[in-house]
Amino acid sequence: MFSENLIAELSQKTPSRICLIVLDGLGGIPVDGKTELEVAKKPNLDEFAKNSVCGVSVPVALGISPGSGPGHLALFGYNPMTYIIGRGILEALGIGVEVGEFDLATRANFATQKNGIIVDRRAGRISTEENKRIVEILRQNIKEIDDVKVSIYPGKEHRFVVIFTGEDLSDNLTDADPQKEGLPPKEAQAKDSSAARSQRIVNAFIKKAKEVLKDEPKANTILLRGFSVPPNIPKMSHLYKLTCGAFATYPMYKGLARLVGMEIVECGSTLETQINTFKKQNKKFDFIFFHYKPTDSRGEDRDFEGKVKAIEEFDSVLPEILNENFDVVAITSDHSTPAKMGSHSWHPCPVAIRAKYEPKDEVSSFTEKEMRKGNLGRIWATDIMPILLANAGKLKKFGA
Amino acid sequence: MFSENLIAELSQKTPSRICLIVLDGLGGIPVDGKTELEVAKKPNLDEFAKNSVCGVSVPVALGISPGSGPGHLALFGYNPMTYIIGRGILEALGIGVEVGEFDLATRANFATQKNGIIVDRRAGRISTEENKRIVEILRQNIKEIDDVKVSIYPGKEHRFVVIFTGEDLSDNLTDADPQKEGLPPKEAQAKDSSAARSQRIVNAFIKKAKEVLKDEPKANTILLRGFSVPPNIPKMSHLYKLTCGAFATYPMYKGLARLVGMEIVECGSTLETQINTFKKQNKKFDFIFFHYKPTDSRGEDRDFEGKVKAIEEFDSVLPEILNENFDVVAITSDHSTPAKMGSHSWHPCPVAIRAKYEPKDEVSSFTEKEMRKGNLGRIWATDIMPILLANAGKLKKFGA
Repeated sequence: MFSENLIAELSQKTPSRICLIVLDGLGGIPVDGKTELEVAKKPNLDEFAKNSVCGVSVPVALGISPGSGPGHLALFGYNPMTYIIGRGILEALGIGVEVGEFDLATRANFATQKNGIIVDRRAGRISTEENKRIVEILRQNIKEIDDVKVSIYPGKEHRFVVIFTGEDLSDNLTDADPQKEGLPPKEAQAKDSSAARSQRIVNAFIKKAKEVLKDEPKANTILLRGFSVPPNIPKMSHLYKLTCGAFATYPMYKGLARLVGMEIVECGSTLETQINTFKKQNKKFDFIFFHYKPTDSRGEDRDFEGKVKAIEEFDSVLPEILNENFDVVAITSDHSTPAKMGSHSWHPCPVAIRAKYEPKDEVSSFTEKEMRKGNLGRIWATDIMPILLANAGKLKKFGA
Repeated sequence: MFSENLIAELSQKTPSRICLIVLDGLGGIPVDGKTELEVAKKPNLDEFAKNSVCGVSVPVALGISPGSGPGHLALFGYNPMTYIIGRGILEALGIGVEVGEFDLATRANFATQKNGIIVDRRAGRISTEENKRIVEILRQNIKEIDDVKVSIYPGKEHRFVVIFTGEDLSDNLTDADPQKEGLPPKEAQAKDSSAARSQRIVNAFIKKAKEVLKDEPKANTILLRGFSVPPNIPKMSHLYKLTCGAFATYPMYKGLARLVGMEIVECGSTLETQINTFKKQNKKFDFIFFHYKPTDSRGEDRDFEGKVKAIEEFDSVLPEILNENFDVVAITSDHSTPAKMGSHSWHPCPVAIRAKYEPKDEVSSFTEKEMRKGNLGRIWATDIMPILLANAGKLKKFGA
């Protein structure tokens, strides 16, 4: 594996353009002898594989099933074990909240307390509408604590996100959550002295929130967990000298792209609006991250047929992407989501790279089995970016 | 490669069960065009390979022939270059001596000294019986030195083991052995100040032993080398949340298993007693290490036919192991021991993993050549544990 410093030193600006297409959770395992990719009718993906160099990529390590965060960071060329995205930050990204350098983010639950005991950690799973109403009350009553700005964002049901914004905040805090019902509430505790002030602010916020909520029938207290600050991650523009644009419809992936410095192009919520926006705006960028979610969603649903259809749906628009004149196009995945398992898995992901300087291999269709025969062999996901950059003429020689 | 910390964070207790079968020194190289595995009639191993995902594993690094210590540590998921088992500790394990946190172990030779010169480093290879007699004399005369307990264990011929037990002992000592005949004896030297006390104790022991032995005709002095304390190695129960049982017949492998926290199940000295004990007791554990030695022994003997027979002997009992209802079974080796070489070698080892979520590959028999075609490809031995844990549902997702 390369180091980011080496790439930053070797990368150079050129007019060539790269498109990285991520079909989320694409890889599968067989059901009745065939995987989702083996069942799907996908002439354009097969044609793409035939004209590409192919292989399989390991997102993090063999046996490790990555979440969306590490899966994407690896594809963007970052060591996913070095750059850890905390749960609070990821939750904020997932509901579309931007996070910046001075933010301390935390996942939060509305909960029910009775006689000093947490009796329901989810406040009876109040409705999302009810959540919004209560968040609005908190917002009205708590705007800052000791010069630290407090921003509160509703999520689904009992879940919400709190962002504390100020200087020198630390995420070296234990959860303010007893984790189990039947126990008294817990305060956040600093794990070292650098987090002492953050501890004081977070606990003052909890105290104030309880006062504000004390007459609520269900949501009369809050639990906070997964305190995190954004990872100190170099931007792609710095590492690779790229002008990066992200075309994604889900908040989480826009958020991940924003973390590494991409410009987020709003492109609606359907594949159709996404493709139309892409066709209009891709020329502004020399690196494009195109994210397609349904392959993962149907895999998570254990919906084999649905995942097959999601692959076929993407296949039908692929020519429109390829028409846009990229020098290098890669199609791969952040992790596998086999419908058989209904979850992210550790299985290596198919990867195909179409580029002028990559000899074609013997791969005849876009399936896991065929990909394993490809010239790339089995690579790390972090190897993909250097290969794309090299093929785009964007990496100078290392040494003389 | 993953880090142990990451795995410790992701691992979770589940009821699923894993069996790791190590056929010691299994891999070979061809003699008259065929390897031991290619000649052996082993229908059960072949059937197992057909129903598994297969590949080859590199114990430490390409070109490196590992000893039993690093070979097994890698299979248990520990980086064998991080956790070094010193020669003294390994020698103690090999003769069945338990070693603990406060032990400093050393290999020892009886030797012959004449006029202040070591004239025979092996004391004329005295018999093992003679060794036992002399060790008993030392035991009677030396029980402790300065509150440090001294334990002496006979080995074969001129070899024995000494364990010093006490607080703050250090293995940062040079060998008390001139290495060559015709030279005067050498004292142990502390390599840094932390070992000053250990130096004093070890040298006092040598001095006292010489006094006790001065009238022995051959074994009138001793040489000590390979001072070592046990590696500070996390237990498998901690790293993986597993309850581990070791079924092995040789002291060395029981000792290695004990080092990583496995429970050692005494199972006699033959494959028959081992299998019978295994059938009775495997249900107590969710991880089993089953060790089979003869493949290595016959390889070391350069006995090609003997190694073939050893493979066939194991093949005949494999169904009895597979009958015991494991969720995941792996068959592999700690290193290759080609009969052609008569020694451990660097050649990657066959590995086959039978698990619900691993798609079968095209491998049709359990041979080195076929294994190389498998879906696992060439992996590191340290990758095996994460793959087994993942397939047993024992690893949570990394990141969100």
